[in-house]
Amino acid sequence: MKIESVDFFYLSMPEVTTEADGSQDALLVRVSAGGFVGWGECEASPLTSIAGFYCPMSHGVCRPVADSVLGQTLDSPADIARIAAEVAYNSMDLLQAAHTFSGVEMALWDVLGKAMDAPVWTLLGYRASYKKTPYASQLFGDSPDETLRGAQKARSDNFKAVKFGWGPIGRGSVEADRDHFQAAREGLGPDGILLVDVGQIWGEDVSAAEARLPALEAAGAVWLEEPFHASALDAYGRLAKLSPKVRIAGGEGAHNVSMARHLINYGGIGFVQIDCGRIGGIGPAKEVADYAVERGVTYVNHTFTSHLALSASLQPFAGLADHTICEFPFAPKALARDITANRLMRDENGEIAAPDAPGLGITIDMKALQTYLVDVEIKVSGRVLYATPPVQ
Amino acid sequence: MKIESVDFFYLSMPEVTTEADGSQDALLVRVSAGGFVGWGECEASPLTSIAGFYCPMSHGVCRPVADSVLGQTLDSPADIARIAAEVAYNSMDLLQAAHTFSGVEMALWDVLGKAMDAPVWTLLGYRASYKKTPYASQLFGDSPDETLRGAQKARSDNFKAVKFGWGPIGRGSVEADRDHFQAAREGLGPDGILLVDVGQIWGEDVSAAEARLPALEAAGAVWLEEPFHASALDAYGRLAKLSPKVRIAGGEGAHNVSMARHLINYGGIGFVQIDCGRIGGIGPAKEVADYAVERGVTYVNHTFTSHLALSASLQPFAGLADHTICEFPFAPKALARDITANRLMRDENGEIAAPDAPGLGITIDMKALQTYLVDVEIKVSGRVLYATPPVQ
Repeated sequence: MKIESVDFFYLSMPEVTTEADGSQDALLVRVSAGGFVGWGECEASPLTSIAGFYCPMSHGVCRPVADSVLGQTLDSPADIARIAAEVAYNSMDLLQAAHTFSGVEMALWDVLGKAMDAPVWTLLGYRASYKKTPYASQLFGDSPDETLRGAQKARSDNFKAVKFGWGPIGRGSVEADRDHFQAAREGLGPDGILLVDVGQIWGEDVSAAEARLPALEAAGAVWLEEPFHASALDAYGRLAKLSPKVRIAGGEGAHNVSMARHLINYGGIGFVQIDCGRIGGIGPAKEVADYAVERGVTYVNHTFTSHLALSASLQPFAGLADHTICEFPFAPKALARDITANRLMRDENGEIAAPDAPGLGITIDMKALQTYLVDVEIKVSGRVLYATPPVQ
Repeated sequence: MKIESVDFFYLSMPEVTTEADGSQDALLVRVSAGGFVGWGECEASPLTSIAGFYCPMSHGVCRPVADSVLGQTLDSPADIARIAAEVAYNSMDLLQAAHTFSGVEMALWDVLGKAMDAPVWTLLGYRASYKKTPYASQLFGDSPDETLRGAQKARSDNFKAVKFGWGPIGRGSVEADRDHFQAAREGLGPDGILLVDVGQIWGEDVSAAEARLPALEAAGAVWLEEPFHASALDAYGRLAKLSPKVRIAGGEGAHNVSMARHLINYGGIGFVQIDCGRIGGIGPAKEVADYAVERGVTYVNHTFTSHLALSASLQPFAGLADHTICEFPFAPKALARDITANRLMRDENGEIAAPDAPGLGITIDMKALQTYLVDVEIKVSGRVLYATPPVQ
């Protein structure tokens, strides 16, 4: 097959707020090859990622992502890896390229899976897609009481695991944070899996993170996620040594395999969380999963948007029976829910699995897509480089 | 002062080729505050960086760079650091943000220097601007003979140091590369400073790099630059241990301070090369310079474009008397030469220094800017988010 076309669809809620909720907009990518159509999703800032695909070339290694994709042969996983390597080299000075290509790469796997009538996880070499225990991702409440109710609601919704993130944590006192952690535990009950995400709030300040460890331990948190800037390896490494019980989680910011490896090797993380919409897609995420297995680290997906992104994010560790925790968009905006015609439903045990269906196994709802579509036009020297394509 | 406006000017040569020459286009940034006007320059892919400044918000930590800059107070270096921290946090999920902000940040220093009637390097805490030995950056020839002539020309142009980069190196045999290294040495004469840049050609393949070390040693190369992907710390570290004589150089890809530190700590580099147009501007580059001094590593600027970028790139190590080698755009495209009304001329010894003039000490040639200006319009939901501003 030849890659015939790549189309970008920028979708947005009518209003986007400063809430740390990544499901307020989306950038879907449609790839056509050999009569098959595949879909992927980029994380985040749709306009910037679109610019990364269509921008004029700056020089030989700052080319638009399009240059390394359009017209390429796509017959095997090796072709996807080859295209990814070309993007990495030809666009090495284009910082946004990794995010732009991530959605394209997912769509390439989807196309290939459909053409080969096989789930993507089989193309990655797995023989089975094991069930995962999804955790409900939600924001900490504005008050401990709100956090408590959030935890209770998640349990009553049949979630065994809950991750609380962002909100007030790290912005006030150690005691205020402790009250939230305790409220979360109280709401979850003694057997619930509690995960805590602080969204890089402490920059590189190890002592600020350390001050919260006793309260996290007391609340039985399984992990503390993103205490520092994604690249603050020293800080990660120091905190990991101080915290044998509450393991450190991180990696969602990784926009290449090396960054994830460094968090494991130098940052000492116990859970590596990969967003397929940022790291360059499913192929590099699988490389990280392989590396994590080698190093005794647990792989976890990072997904806060649609079930297309969720399916893509499950593929790289679908076949790892022991890596069971998975992120699950618990309360996404209507956009993220509406744009797929099918979704990964939890079974009676509250578990999900990567679909046993060709490609990513997710169908796009074109009508819903139309509802959220943002009209964009980028003109350079009088020439339209990008205009929102018609939905059809 | 309040930051009143930020304007982007996308400039381009009439024709941009796949040559690895970053001076074929440019993105200039003009900042106005308190009646002063400052200029900076982003590296690279102007359209994508513009999109990063004006894009609609995706969520609370994926905001356009503009949100953290416009209307801010600018009265001291601490204000610049504060704005930079806001960008890093508010745009953490916007990968391109570091490149976009780099040019803005330079312009903030230029404004502040002009307002305080002081060179930027004094605002960074230096008491003197020491002379630097510029090396002529040029591409390897297509043949060793062409490389030889390039080296001879550089010497006859009064350059004591020459860096050859890219071209055929690493694409053919070890022997072919050796012939180029020898030709470069022959052309430079025995006392010339020879630097070699291979532009990440070996990915993570340490043995491919190792195979070239004997020829590099024999040719007396001072450094081997960017043998691997910017993030391949393990590969860097392993090669550094294998090469006590030819030190490894790298860092131009760093888009935050941590990345540069990691190359020093884990990658074992002996020269850290920082592009102020990528790392977030002059402030983070100065942090790297301080760290390099602490660790016995030599700081070098990375500059391949205009003398505005060159002046900005000299500021962070202007006061380091022992860090003498500096990159100098040897044969840039007409664009990069024309857009500044003054340039950093080499003295009779072939040396240059950061200007002893307010701000960055460089005046933009508005007429030339008009000549190379690219007309861009970005429209989202019927609203023009960016249109090339008039040159006045």
